[in-house]
Amino acid sequence: MKRVKEQKSPSYVRSYHRILVTTTQLTLIQIDNYGPWTVTPEPRREMDLQTLQSRLFADLAQFVGSRDGYVFFTRFDNMIAVTNGMGRDDHALLQESIDNRYPVTISLGVDINERPIEALEDATQQIQKAGSAQDKGRTEVLGGDSWPETDSGPELDELEVAHFDVNDATGKYTDQLNEFDSYIQIERGYASVMQYMREEHGALSFFVGGDNVISVCPDLSESDYRGAIDYVRDDAEVDLKVGVGRGKSAHEAGYAAKHALEDCRHDGTRVEFAGAKLPVN
Amino acid sequence: MKRVKEQKSPSYVRSYHRILVTTTQLTLIQIDNYGPWTVTPEPRREMDLQTLQSRLFADLAQFVGSRDGYVFFTRFDNMIAVTNGMGRDDHALLQESIDNRYPVTISLGVDINERPIEALEDATQQIQKAGSAQDKGRTEVLGGDSWPETDSGPELDELEVAHFDVNDATGKYTDQLNEFDSYIQIERGYASVMQYMREEHGALSFFVGGDNVISVCPDLSESDYRGAIDYVRDDAEVDLKVGVGRGKSAHEAGYAAKHALEDCRHDGTRVEFAGAKLPVN
Amino acid sequence: MKRVKEQKSPSYVRSYHRILVTTTQLTLIQIDNYGPWTVTPEPRREMDLQTLQSRLFADLAQFVGSRDGYVFFTRFDNMIAVTNGMGRDDHALLQESIDNRYPVTISLGVDINERPIEALEDATQQIQKAGSAQDKGRTEVLGGDSWPETDSGPELDELEVAHFDVNDATGKYTDQLNEFDSYIQIERGYASVMQYMREEHGALSFFVGGDNVISVCPDLSESDYRGAIDYVRDDAEVDLKVGVGRGKSAHEAGYAAKHALEDCRHDGTRVEFAGAKLPVN
Amino acid sequence: MKRVKEQKSPSYVRSYHRILVTTTQLTLIQIDNYGPWTVTPEPRREMDLQTLQSRLFADLAQFVGSRDGYVFFTRFDNMIAVTNGMGRDDHALLQESIDNRYPVTISLGVDINERPIEALEDATQQIQKAGSAQDKGRTEVLGGDSWPETDSGPELDELEVAHFDVNDATGKYTDQLNEFDSYIQIERGYASVMQYMREEHGALSFFVGGDNVISVCPDLSESDYRGAIDYVRDDAEVDLKVGVGRGKSAHEAGYAAKHALEDCRHDGTRVEFAGAKLPVN
Repeated sequence: MKRVKEQKSPSYVRSYHRILVTTTQLTLIQIDNYGPWTVTPEPRREMDLQTLQSRLFADLAQFVGSRDGYVFFTRFDNMIAVTNGMGRDDHALLQESIDNRYPVTISLGVDINERPIEALEDATQQIQKAGSAQDKGRTEVLGGDSWPETDSGPELDELEVAHFDVNDATGKYTDQLNEFDSYIQIERGYASVMQYMREEHGALSFFVGGDNVISVCPDLSESDYRGAIDYVRDDAEVDLKVGVGRGKSAHEAGYAAKHALEDCRHDGTRVEFAGAKLPVN
Repeated sequence: MKRVKEQKSPSYVRSYHRILVTTTQLTLIQIDNYGPWTVTPEPRREMDLQTLQSRLFADLAQFVGSRDGYVFFTRFDNMIAVTNGMGRDDHALLQESIDNRYPVTISLGVDINERPIEALEDATQQIQKAGSAQDKGRTEVLGGDSWPETDSGPELDELEVAHFDVNDATGKYTDQLNEFDSYIQIERGYASVMQYMREEHGALSFFVGGDNVISVCPDLSESDYRGAIDYVRDDAEVDLKVGVGRGKSAHEAGYAAKHALEDCRHDGTRVEFAGAKLPVN
Repeated sequence: MKRVKEQKSPSYVRSYHRILVTTTQLTLIQIDNYGPWTVTPEPRREMDLQTLQSRLFADLAQFVGSRDGYVFFTRFDNMIAVTNGMGRDDHALLQESIDNRYPVTISLGVDINERPIEALEDATQQIQKAGSAQDKGRTEVLGGDSWPETDSGPELDELEVAHFDVNDATGKYTDQLNEFDSYIQIERGYASVMQYMREEHGALSFFVGGDNVISVCPDLSESDYRGAIDYVRDDAEVDLKVGVGRGKSAHEAGYAAKHALEDCRHDGTRVEFAGAKLPVN
Repeated sequence: MKRVKEQKSPSYVRSYHRILVTTTQLTLIQIDNYGPWTVTPEPRREMDLQTLQSRLFADLAQFVGSRDGYVFFTRFDNMIAVTNGMGRDDHALLQESIDNRYPVTISLGVDINERPIEALEDATQQIQKAGSAQDKGRTEVLGGDSWPETDSGPELDELEVAHFDVNDATGKYTDQLNEFDSYIQIERGYASVMQYMREEHGALSFFVGGDNVISVCPDLSESDYRGAIDYVRDDAEVDLKVGVGRGKSAHEAGYAAKHALEDCRHDGTRVEFAGAKLPVN
């Protein structure tokens, strides 16, 4: 996949930014009244809770992922999904299927916005306004004022995903330090990029294992990403690189971002945009 | 479960500390050559990787958990388990079973120490000395110089587990903020406690979902735990409380810690030790 | 849900049969070269194989089921799915996702026919013509000459599903006999109905647990179903009842069949058709 | 693994039979009140039920299997496990763990006997006497009068497992017939061997996928197995071969049986006993 050297075509990039506006649909998935359940009638075995949480997440990852969305485990009792292209029926089916197979139920709030943080803000409120996360009577909320239209225009459908990883994490950390100290380094880098991207850009960044962080972003420029990488190097002393992609779905955008990240690896660069971002000309 | 007010019996605590020394057996679980596998021959779908990782973790949680151990997902490609009471055969069986059912294999390093970080340090080296995490030829290492003796004395068998949570996380965060900002707060508190406990005490702390952090600790006093809580309040502006337990296994210690944490909730206290820590007198 | 007494409207039924022709899309799912894999380099632990097989089936059930299809475990190394409405892309995605998460791969053959057995015959040949099930070089076949058109007419989309169960299985077997002898009775009934429905009608019948059998059928009349029930009573001394449904998908048809079976339970009848079978007039 | 030609040492076999008496511990696992749950308040989606059942079975297979037992899916709502070596605590832990992670609970009945069918008879009664399978108030029965002694002698600990498969099933069925007709052939062979072994020997035989059947047997001779194979050839026109093993656990016996079956494949024989059956002399 050919990558784009944005700095070489500044005039193009400006027009490009005018044309494409990102639109992200976010779903908040909240386990209903989960905290109290975990200690009723007595505390439950921790490893059973861990199993339940991680399998629930895995099931969501398969359901959402096979519809080209992404879901992140976040706090496990609250998970955040990118669901562009999934409608109300899909959400209702997911809710029913979990209800049929788990001892807990889930509430879902959905919203769409150019800025991911705004979409999540409204998605969260869809659930919050129905009651507290620990309200016994509030179960299986399915909230969303703005379910996607089937024939939404192409400008609205694209979203941007950035895939960060740590330069030579294996050589510098995994093969050198004890695992907990490696983990602390990765965590520090993650905490730094997560807070920077959220405050500067309203982007949502998630640790996805290993040394990988995936950010769901509004339309950002190469210098925006360079700014993030510089910030994390100064703040946490962790060296990142990033591949960026766009697409109609989280999978499409994220898959392009993965390829762009491979370009970084191959070329020793810090920021690469997937070729798909620019139309052939 | 009756809790202990340690400050009321200082003379007892001293003798208690002389008698009981914690001993923690830690196992590092490392997926062999995982990073390269995820992008060979091309990057794999992210949600399939997420599913694979979380299900692998769930399987480990069931295997280890049903033997009264604990396992933490950490970075998912490297996981840390508390395996007091599990011997070499158990570890070999786990390795074989994963090999039979997953497209990846795992290496295991094991060690025992009074201080968790020391045990992990040696457990990590058991794997590192066999080769790099990204060495194709290094698969299914089963390393451990000091497998547990069956008839180890009771002083060696006890370990200490602390279970932290955030005061009123639902009221202050989940029901008030958008989920990402709630998550940032919880993450900040976790990063703070994790680094403090590791640096001050050689304890290993893991986020386990919701607003919960579990620490595998050496023998610590109530003032040690108060110190951690004070530090996190100052450093991250997050209010924690903690229940502490001891036992022959991670489950036994952790289960006592959960009950002690329930005592905190009930009494509005910040640190509680499970009654089991002190013999009735 | 109102049920239809077909015998009361013979003239209607005739015209009905002329209008609605069932069309079933079947997919054969075959694990590639599975037998040899289970004993290479040595026999693998049986419970790991059982776990692998049943989880693979569960994943297929979620993927196909959330697209309103049905999948049956059959022999586990070969599974049969009803996939009306699923196209080539869905099948390719399923294949890719299994490849990413399991140590084995799957081949898929697909065909559509009025008679289920004919559809399966061709679906099987799609795979067979590419090589033996134990041919190492034959992996991930994706065969199908007749992928469904998006705009296929409604007459073509309906299929018929019958849901059988055993009258008072709990009272007569489960609560009376040892479990193996209960199982023998149920198995005997299943073997009988499976062979009868296949030979008489080209229908495919699957045991789905408990005392339940689901048949994927061509367009059959009430007397056809009575014939099956009579046969099984004589042949295997097992008393069945059946609910029958139609719909655009296996789920829609099967769900209607379940409701019709509830009508049997409620009314003490042996054959019920879901009301949906007859248009309101 | 060396196999035993029993026919060549008839005098030895007699003394052998005097020494070793098989002892099988069987556990009946019954989902509590499952039938009513599947249709309350309305019928649940069939693929969710299939997923639930097969994952529950997989979890049991991992729990029991990692303790060297076997579990068979049987009817899924009732499953039969061979649990030699597992005590009351293991059973209670399994019950608790399922309760923590599933929307259903399980009852367990356990018994030990020289003849598998007798053990199952009593295990089933442990549950039956507590109430009906569809009694709402009867949940999580844990029944067993005769939990195994830790220091039971070696003669009591051995059990016998036979592993049957169909000669050239791939060549004769899978690669030739449509999958349903292949399945019918395998099913017919299974039904035949299952009934014969139960009636003649009190052995319990389970289809485990592909063309494989595993029988849990009392102490049987080579001519007993030849008798079964001859019967199935006449009754169902299916050609079987069988490997037989003994061991302290289902895994040990079954693993030896698998190796013996490999001997059959290699040598073209119909019945092989694992060398382990005969003590070295």
